[in-house]
Amino acid sequence: MSVARSYARGVAGGSEETGGRASVDRFTAVRDLTEALAAPLSAEDQTVQSMPDTSPTKWHRAHTTWFFDEFVLAPHHGGHQTFDPDFAFLFNSYYEAVGPRHPRAARGVVSRPGIEEVAAFRAHVDAAVVELLDAEPAPAVLELVELGINHEQQHQELLLMDIKHALSLNRIDAVYRSARQPECPASDLRWIGNDGGKTRIGHEGGGFAYDNEGPAHHVWLEPFELASRTVTNAEVLAFIDDGGYRRSDLWLSEGWATVQAEGWEAPLYWRDDDRSWSVFTLAGRRPVDPHQPACHLSYYEADAIARWLGARLPTEFEWEAVAAGHEPAGNLLDVELLHPLPSAGDGSGPDQLFGDVWEWTGSAYLPHPGFQPAAGAVGEYNGKFMVNQQVLRGGACVTPPGHVRATYRNFFPPSARWAFSGVRLARSVAP
Amino acid sequence: MSVARSYARGVAGGSEETGGRASVDRFTAVRDLTEALAAPLSAEDQTVQSMPDTSPTKWHRAHTTWFFDEFVLAPHHGGHQTFDPDFAFLFNSYYEAVGPRHPRAARGVVSRPGIEEVAAFRAHVDAAVVELLDAEPAPAVLELVELGINHEQQHQELLLMDIKHALSLNRIDAVYRSARQPECPASDLRWIGNDGGKTRIGHEGGGFAYDNEGPAHHVWLEPFELASRTVTNAEVLAFIDDGGYRRSDLWLSEGWATVQAEGWEAPLYWRDDDRSWSVFTLAGRRPVDPHQPACHLSYYEADAIARWLGARLPTEFEWEAVAAGHEPAGNLLDVELLHPLPSAGDGSGPDQLFGDVWEWTGSAYLPHPGFQPAAGAVGEYNGKFMVNQQVLRGGACVTPPGHVRATYRNFFPPSARWAFSGVRLARSVAP
Amino acid sequence: MSVARSYARGVAGGSEETGGRASVDRFTAVRDLTEALAAPLSAEDQTVQSMPDTSPTKWHRAHTTWFFDEFVLAPHHGGHQTFDPDFAFLFNSYYEAVGPRHPRAARGVVSRPGIEEVAAFRAHVDAAVVELLDAEPAPAVLELVELGINHEQQHQELLLMDIKHALSLNRIDAVYRSARQPECPASDLRWIGNDGGKTRIGHEGGGFAYDNEGPAHHVWLEPFELASRTVTNAEVLAFIDDGGYRRSDLWLSEGWATVQAEGWEAPLYWRDDDRSWSVFTLAGRRPVDPHQPACHLSYYEADAIARWLGARLPTEFEWEAVAAGHEPAGNLLDVELLHPLPSAGDGSGPDQLFGDVWEWTGSAYLPHPGFQPAAGAVGEYNGKFMVNQQVLRGGACVTPPGHVRATYRNFFPPSARWAFSGVRLARSVAP
Amino acid sequence: MSVARSYARGVAGGSEETGGRASVDRFTAVRDLTEALAAPLSAEDQTVQSMPDTSPTKWHRAHTTWFFDEFVLAPHHGGHQTFDPDFAFLFNSYYEAVGPRHPRAARGVVSRPGIEEVAAFRAHVDAAVVELLDAEPAPAVLELVELGINHEQQHQELLLMDIKHALSLNRIDAVYRSARQPECPASDLRWIGNDGGKTRIGHEGGGFAYDNEGPAHHVWLEPFELASRTVTNAEVLAFIDDGGYRRSDLWLSEGWATVQAEGWEAPLYWRDDDRSWSVFTLAGRRPVDPHQPACHLSYYEADAIARWLGARLPTEFEWEAVAAGHEPAGNLLDVELLHPLPSAGDGSGPDQLFGDVWEWTGSAYLPHPGFQPAAGAVGEYNGKFMVNQQVLRGGACVTPPGHVRATYRNFFPPSARWAFSGVRLARSVAP
Repeated sequence: MSVARSYARGVAGGSEETGGRASVDRFTAVRDLTEALAAPLSAEDQTVQSMPDTSPTKWHRAHTTWFFDEFVLAPHHGGHQTFDPDFAFLFNSYYEAVGPRHPRAARGVVSRPGIEEVAAFRAHVDAAVVELLDAEPAPAVLELVELGINHEQQHQELLLMDIKHALSLNRIDAVYRSARQPECPASDLRWIGNDGGKTRIGHEGGGFAYDNEGPAHHVWLEPFELASRTVTNAEVLAFIDDGGYRRSDLWLSEGWATVQAEGWEAPLYWRDDDRSWSVFTLAGRRPVDPHQPACHLSYYEADAIARWLGARLPTEFEWEAVAAGHEPAGNLLDVELLHPLPSAGDGSGPDQLFGDVWEWTGSAYLPHPGFQPAAGAVGEYNGKFMVNQQVLRGGACVTPPGHVRATYRNFFPPSARWAFSGVRLARSVAP
Repeated sequence: MSVARSYARGVAGGSEETGGRASVDRFTAVRDLTEALAAPLSAEDQTVQSMPDTSPTKWHRAHTTWFFDEFVLAPHHGGHQTFDPDFAFLFNSYYEAVGPRHPRAARGVVSRPGIEEVAAFRAHVDAAVVELLDAEPAPAVLELVELGINHEQQHQELLLMDIKHALSLNRIDAVYRSARQPECPASDLRWIGNDGGKTRIGHEGGGFAYDNEGPAHHVWLEPFELASRTVTNAEVLAFIDDGGYRRSDLWLSEGWATVQAEGWEAPLYWRDDDRSWSVFTLAGRRPVDPHQPACHLSYYEADAIARWLGARLPTEFEWEAVAAGHEPAGNLLDVELLHPLPSAGDGSGPDQLFGDVWEWTGSAYLPHPGFQPAAGAVGEYNGKFMVNQQVLRGGACVTPPGHVRATYRNFFPPSARWAFSGVRLARSVAP
Repeated sequence: MSVARSYARGVAGGSEETGGRASVDRFTAVRDLTEALAAPLSAEDQTVQSMPDTSPTKWHRAHTTWFFDEFVLAPHHGGHQTFDPDFAFLFNSYYEAVGPRHPRAARGVVSRPGIEEVAAFRAHVDAAVVELLDAEPAPAVLELVELGINHEQQHQELLLMDIKHALSLNRIDAVYRSARQPECPASDLRWIGNDGGKTRIGHEGGGFAYDNEGPAHHVWLEPFELASRTVTNAEVLAFIDDGGYRRSDLWLSEGWATVQAEGWEAPLYWRDDDRSWSVFTLAGRRPVDPHQPACHLSYYEADAIARWLGARLPTEFEWEAVAAGHEPAGNLLDVELLHPLPSAGDGSGPDQLFGDVWEWTGSAYLPHPGFQPAAGAVGEYNGKFMVNQQVLRGGACVTPPGHVRATYRNFFPPSARWAFSGVRLARSVAP
Repeated sequence: MSVARSYARGVAGGSEETGGRASVDRFTAVRDLTEALAAPLSAEDQTVQSMPDTSPTKWHRAHTTWFFDEFVLAPHHGGHQTFDPDFAFLFNSYYEAVGPRHPRAARGVVSRPGIEEVAAFRAHVDAAVVELLDAEPAPAVLELVELGINHEQQHQELLLMDIKHALSLNRIDAVYRSARQPECPASDLRWIGNDGGKTRIGHEGGGFAYDNEGPAHHVWLEPFELASRTVTNAEVLAFIDDGGYRRSDLWLSEGWATVQAEGWEAPLYWRDDDRSWSVFTLAGRRPVDPHQPACHLSYYEADAIARWLGARLPTEFEWEAVAAGHEPAGNLLDVELLHPLPSAGDGSGPDQLFGDVWEWTGSAYLPHPGFQPAAGAVGEYNGKFMVNQQVLRGGACVTPPGHVRATYRNFFPPSARWAFSGVRLARSVAP
């Protein structure tokens, strides 16, 4: 059983217990998984940054550690010794309230601390957090640790997204980690109907959730249908063959401008090897499998492909209405796989809701009615990004199990392609 | 009575009749108003373009004419003689389906045709459209003329926005047209409560509306309150005095980045004349009137000012729910005024809903459920801009009367400031 | 006889006399020529700016006037009334010492003053300068007027270069002024030998010259040969046909980067009309005449074409050594022509040294030994541009007669193409 | 004795002998020095790239190796096995004739090969080159090895320049290698007169020289004086205190634009620690020593400082005329020092001509008369950069001993500051 799977059990167990001991297990499991994900990467691999939106592996390892240092240990652990006072400058990501930062676009120039010093920083903070947790701290502190755990899980996914992007820019088709790639046919697409009406949306009840998942509230949905699976590579290949990337009528105006400015002709990581498409993966370059879910699409492409297929993207509320009754299981992070898989269902119900690929929705990332960000610096976590982003739902094959929920709201700018992002179709139904 | 006011009667009359003759009157009234708006501007004034988002006055005059030429006369007027075949290249704005275009950002380099040739082009097309209308064409043709009329009304507002921006960049504080500026106190802000619930949204029934205003559908609203008037200059001055433009905690992350990159310290057109603020207007430079509605704010500023005032922006659905029962009257385009006016109400009901300033909403510009763009090139009109824009509602003092409705959806990118855009506050109420 | 020709006589006469009366004639002739050059252009034409390096026609008219206002009238004309105090801000080009300026790249947004107000400004200043000259001012003042006259002559050429560029961006192939285009064969290229050695360079003796033409000094030249005429369009066509714009080995590294970034495939203003080349001229679009001198080439292209032809560019000193004994006559500004003409000589001596096209030299624009810029703001005239520019020699068909000399040093950045710039070949000879 | 010093002896020995054995020694000494320079740097340090103009340490190590692989071994070593065929793509710098390349600005994203694989690549190529040299190859091959050795020496300096720049961007004031910093007073500045006249310039006779140092030829110099030492930090501090970075009159136009765009207030690496200046060095941050030569100045700053001091920069010919009779000894690369040192002379003759800091000259980088680049790809070495660069002379404290000569021509764009570049003053003398 892989590290990620055993970690997932820790999370599952942890969410049912309430004591600090459980939190030590969960904390340790998540922290260990980060190190396991970094383990295949050399010091050189962990140092590079491929674009302003991505970060070096060792930065992810240090930044998640700084988060505990800054928001948990400094205020709540008596006599805590900061490992290195410069690290707050180097590893703060964007928290304006905490002070100035190393420029985001220049993280790839920070050669020091090296990976060994980062490992020492992690060990130093780990020991202090475990000590704090062993002392049975106040619930507010446990909640901050829980936030730090979830924050680190997000960076586990980012770590994999980012190193994939960096390795892809090297003409050597580098292998992060070899992996099996099951081959099986995708199921036929069927349409799951929903009558709409007054619908409850957002997180409520126990368990951790981000502030942006609440408050729970009602929305009114018109009748709609949702596709039983995500769009496949075969469908994207047909879109390409039909001139999809050269037909302005299929695109949003901004999308068309981006296609032309960037010279897009296929999803990110695809390469046209003389009329046979290959794709760069974390396991190296491979032929495009037509049965796999299409991945690494921007919102612009998702929107255009849906339009070409005579459908549209679902709203995040439609998606959540369908997902609400489903367990967040599926093809989530398994370090021995790291690929989206063909749909296994028979089309009688929604498949691939969780895992495989994040699903772009037609909803802009905006606050739920009554949303209030948390007080203090951690309040910068989600709320301040609520403009010019689209919501994605469901998680991907690089999202840690136990991290995602039916109410979970991911978001990216519409031009972003380096997330493991795909498309599920929807269509309106006359009432 | 001003030109705009007499024009407004033409519109009001037209919307109640159904024959072609009424359309000739409306067509002529709108076309004449465009020329009246351009009349105070010299050939030089009408030629300049101040930034890629704006267009020269003579381009507006020619582009609106091309719209009738391309979409009405060419397909529906037998034996129509095109005035100049190059004009389709020069004056197409963004219709990809119609063919290549002169680059948008370089409209200010097109010195020819000059304003007299543009006037001749307008006369040529006007005569043909009137001839067509006199022949009692099919309803589909009348609808295209109606679309052309509304399209031209939008460009009347853009013409004023754009020339204001251009003149503002000239150290000579140029006067477009002198105007009276009534001085009176703004009313106190009161909160208008709304219980929310299932609410009908979108255009239905007779009369012209854009495709993006429909289809009519339901949304569910949580209880909320809407401010009785828009935010005033006095409130923005207090925001500035409190360091609002220097406090990152008040801003969306993108907004804060924009403030720093652009060096914003006040709304667009404001100037700090040694601690006394003046503002550039279409009537030249004037002292900032604290009672007037704040204007020329970006979405970022609107959002930050609302947050600083302990409130938020309304959604477009909340706005429409309140506006639904109100007549679209108010301080709309009057060529002798062209300023937002202080609120005149007593706070017992919503004031300034229509006119004065466009009101930023917290809603991203997205399709209503079931939205279908029109077939053909005119289908590019609205739908293809539905990403990375925020909705504004209600019209401004430069919006032609008869053009705006409770369901009317304007939209701009969140960084735009050259529209006559302001803020109305809202807040959520615990149910 | 054209205006430019009669003006040239004024200059020629002026340079032999010494009194103030002669200066009035020369002043008036040059000022009139500027107005004659602007006369074919509408108010709209005179307002547009096509790129940051170019300026509107009415800006040239006003800026040259401001130069007299600022440097001649303000300090030396008692009781001089400034026409409009804002004009110093609007029409200062780059004189840091004189104060802040309207941004250069935004000159095309300045609609006011219009062309009539600019004409009034010119008349106001003309009257004052004539009054000043009539009063027989000190020699230093006469020298400043002389500088102003030469400055205006430079802007006459810029006016024509700039409006050509602006009109070329309009899909309507606009005609500045129709002109005859003599067709005749270019002479064969022959090589004029020069033994080199100790050579006198730079301006000395009487008559006006710019500060950058002196002091006169010696250089040592190795033996060389200079081509009898400039490179023709036929030779550039052969370069194109040989893949010259696609062969990196022919180009300087920066030149090759520019070719790729800009997509250059031919000289500026050339268009490939399905394998037949046409060229935009001030008289509209015409077929490329293979006998005419190649024109509108960047330094990068000049250098690459010379290399492809097995030669190199001359240094400015080699050029001056050959030109030193020659009268500055030739195909200079004639408003009825405005084209470079085929070489008329028989190859026995250098032809086209003056006029037709500016000739790129392989010399960077640097100070002559002992160079000292003038004191005060006029000292900013030439010296502060002495980096990252290459010297051109000889004048072009848009350079006013009487303006150019064997010692005259023009300069542009190596990427510039909108000047009337061409190539004369040189080659080294083993001693 | 340091590695660099023992290496220098190897060079000195080698330049006197002529056999292949000597070349093995020299080759090995230079190759070893590169590894010694990289030795203090971690895998992370060797991976980072701080700007498009700089390269990672491991790239320098691999690129210099590829140079031997491509230009020496592939064509001249029978049966040579290429280490990895992808390396030609990754480590070609700019040789267009050799094929496509990894983008220069993205060298910092290439994590693989890592430093150990690069070391193996070096060992592989070293063995083959030594084998080739042992076989007593043709003189043309020995010349290519000699070119490769000199090429590697240039990259030794670049390696130090580049890692200094990268480390400087890290808030941790990283130490490349601790070093002593001798403190002693700078000598007084005196002027060394030169009568000028016909002067021999350029390399001739035996020994290695780059193609751009020839052919030898004559220039004519006007009388001038050259400063006895380079400008000191004390003089730059006085320039700063006099508002030098805020006075437009001291700067070239492009220089002033750069000062404003970049916000320059002092030389690169200087920091104003509350009115006490410190400077980042390869040995960490230190107080600015007023006696040391000013370093890390752009051409713009060099030119402005010279002007402020009432002098100018020498031409490269003036510099060479003075240096011609002097041995290239001085403060060149010593891995235990790496700082420019105060002038030790008494002013009776020129001091610091070689080493300490490269000296900007007022000469643009252009070909000597009769210059012909080498045939084939190595011909791209120098000639294709001959535009928009200024010549620097004399070498710096990071230039390997044995690499520099009186005729050696270094060059950088005028805005570059990360080279160890300083200023020596000159002035013209009336004949």
